[in-house]
Amino acid sequence: MDLIQIGRQAKQAALALASLGSQAKDAAIVAMAQALESRGPEIMAANQLDLEAADRRHLAPPLVKRLKFDAAKIRETCAGLRALAGLPDPVGRTLRAMELDRGLELYQVTCPIGVVGVIFESRPDALVQIASLCLKSGNATLLKGGSEAAATNGMLADIITAATRSAGIPDGWMTLLETRQDVAAMLTLDDLIDLIIPRGSNAFVRHIMENTHIPVMGHADGICHVFVDRNADIDMAVRVCVDSKCQYPAVCNAAETFLVHSAAAAGVLPPLAAALAGRGVEIRGCGRTAGHIQVVPATEADWRTEYLDLIVSIRIVDSLQEAVAHINHYGSGHTDVIVTPDGERARHFMDAVDSADVFANCSSRFADGFRFGLGAEVGISTHKIHARGPVGLEGMTIYKWRLIGSGQVVADYSGPDARPFTHRLLEKPYR
Amino acid sequence: MDLIQIGRQAKQAALALASLGSQAKDAAIVAMAQALESRGPEIMAANQLDLEAADRRHLAPPLVKRLKFDAAKIRETCAGLRALAGLPDPVGRTLRAMELDRGLELYQVTCPIGVVGVIFESRPDALVQIASLCLKSGNATLLKGGSEAAATNGMLADIITAATRSAGIPDGWMTLLETRQDVAAMLTLDDLIDLIIPRGSNAFVRHIMENTHIPVMGHADGICHVFVDRNADIDMAVRVCVDSKCQYPAVCNAAETFLVHSAAAAGVLPPLAAALAGRGVEIRGCGRTAGHIQVVPATEADWRTEYLDLIVSIRIVDSLQEAVAHINHYGSGHTDVIVTPDGERARHFMDAVDSADVFANCSSRFADGFRFGLGAEVGISTHKIHARGPVGLEGMTIYKWRLIGSGQVVADYSGPDARPFTHRLLEKPYR
Repeated sequence: MDLIQIGRQAKQAALALASLGSQAKDAAIVAMAQALESRGPEIMAANQLDLEAADRRHLAPPLVKRLKFDAAKIRETCAGLRALAGLPDPVGRTLRAMELDRGLELYQVTCPIGVVGVIFESRPDALVQIASLCLKSGNATLLKGGSEAAATNGMLADIITAATRSAGIPDGWMTLLETRQDVAAMLTLDDLIDLIIPRGSNAFVRHIMENTHIPVMGHADGICHVFVDRNADIDMAVRVCVDSKCQYPAVCNAAETFLVHSAAAAGVLPPLAAALAGRGVEIRGCGRTAGHIQVVPATEADWRTEYLDLIVSIRIVDSLQEAVAHINHYGSGHTDVIVTPDGERARHFMDAVDSADVFANCSSRFADGFRFGLGAEVGISTHKIHARGPVGLEGMTIYKWRLIGSGQVVADYSGPDARPFTHRLLEKPYR
Repeated sequence: MDLIQIGRQAKQAALALASLGSQAKDAAIVAMAQALESRGPEIMAANQLDLEAADRRHLAPPLVKRLKFDAAKIRETCAGLRALAGLPDPVGRTLRAMELDRGLELYQVTCPIGVVGVIFESRPDALVQIASLCLKSGNATLLKGGSEAAATNGMLADIITAATRSAGIPDGWMTLLETRQDVAAMLTLDDLIDLIIPRGSNAFVRHIMENTHIPVMGHADGICHVFVDRNADIDMAVRVCVDSKCQYPAVCNAAETFLVHSAAAAGVLPPLAAALAGRGVEIRGCGRTAGHIQVVPATEADWRTEYLDLIVSIRIVDSLQEAVAHINHYGSGHTDVIVTPDGERARHFMDAVDSADVFANCSSRFADGFRFGLGAEVGISTHKIHARGPVGLEGMTIYKWRLIGSGQVVADYSGPDARPFTHRLLEKPYR
């Protein structure tokens, strides 16, 4: 099948999925879990092929680790599926109900987006998570995983397709794309695909954004900051900075730059430098930072760099305003943190920093759909419309306006003798 | 100033607007109303220039009527501004509050989008309405109106700029663009502009969508349908069809196609044809429609055409499913109506039709921000993300995730001895 046919089938499936009840979707998600469990040996055999190929191609150990899909991972994935099945349906929620006039009621009710294209990295559990989030939110999906996981992903997609077909989900609701040419073709299907979610490197995400007129949601950069304010508790500041940088440096919500208030620098920088040295972190500092601790001199480029590694840049600022201005100028609108004992200053920071996630007194690494209690995430968005930060089930829905009348026409509500609207909010949900 | 400078100034203004309180914004909107009232004679003099130019260029009478901005229109516009000032602030609303763990609270709070570019038609009251909606929702805006209203728009923009500056709104929050070159330049400012809202003809909106990587929200087509179901009340069906087609045929929410259930055709078509004839409507019908009433034969192109005129196409279908399939195939996802006495069939229609507005037993012409009780609208969206249908204040906001801790780090919530999250929904709003 070519991509246009696949897209058309997905669109038909999406139209059918939109009317499907919660029970049918949840039963299909449970069926996915049962099928993955009962066919565990086949999945692990397929995964073995990917692991052997990775070995032959000398893939870096952290990538190999992410690629591995063993019995423990299958158990964890299936537990995630059952938890997802237990969450409330994000579709059919009444966001607003209003009487426009007697016998004329307006309901703003959530519904699926339609067909969503997701391109993701080489973690096979991502396929299961994204597919199940799409199904729960009533969206059809075209998926493209990393080529390193091709055998595992192919097996998972076959199992999921068969299980959901038996559970009555319309054919074509999920298709695994196989080639980069498929992805390129997908990007041209403006009429059939409603949203593209690219996950991956900065350059890759930018490439996607520049090569499609379909709306794109995701993030290119993750240049996250921790600002240590004056009077910050030194232990807390060090703990939050170290976790933000070191707990998992290769991911988007790890910090790249620490900003330190000049009134806090003398107290914070020496123990912070010691803690970072203990974790093997290279420090690149501004001139004033170099007056307190030993650093590699930072250049302008450092403030714009997502290291994704055990490197951090440190800059001293003279005010909260200067910290905010630095973040809004150099940041990527992802996640930024203030460490301060002053609630008013925390609030001001969170008001003024224009990022998806603005935190006070905790690690930037909390920026994650599971930690946020969203169940899981299809990605993290630094876009300014639709959904921001970790995108879970709600971010995969939109709404319809349902207006239910008894023969009303606009002519009666127009002109000099116009009948007035009541515009009375109703408490009841659409049923 | 060139467009990049204008864009940068707008971005700075947007960052400041985001922290501005409700009172400051509402006071500025009231100041806009006062200034427009006190400078009424200047506005009308400027409008006179536009009207004279329109006369010289033999502009069509309906366009001249939309262009006119007299004392009554100023009064109406200012009443709208005062009503807007009285509405709740769409910014700062808590959408979700959750305890992640003791002393670690997450708030999803609405905030402005940022900088919004709006291109609108030659109705000067649109400028005031869009600018005030942007201000109330905390967004900076670059506006481009129709050239026919250049003098009036220029005067209105000067008055609004001066009034809001006196009221303490940051400079550069609103700029009126003057040329098509400015619009073309604006479309390239991906880094500075967060959203483009084009209003205007189908071809114009498509041109905008194809020439920018900034997210675009709006609608190109408005191909709206009324489906007259079996057993529909004949009087109601005729009334709803006539209003949907004739109450204002030149606008996007007017109906272009009526679908009639074959079981209803014999009863509905003759009185419907008579009523439409009385309004001067040309009917283009399918072969089966021609068996009941006199019609111009409809071609395939008719089902895809937005007439925006006193022309309608009529097709007989044999089932609700066939009506839904026709609408999802030929429609534009704008507004579609069913006339039926059967609540279950209405619900099924509204579930299955993939449009922004799905109505039962009322006119398609109700699809409008004011009628929906949204105060006003910046446009109507047929996109599938962010906002759908009439877009009012809420559609001009997004949200931030605010996480407030007491020193928590992710290391404690990871690994074999991970501390569990409580993920307990909180009832309290962010304050």
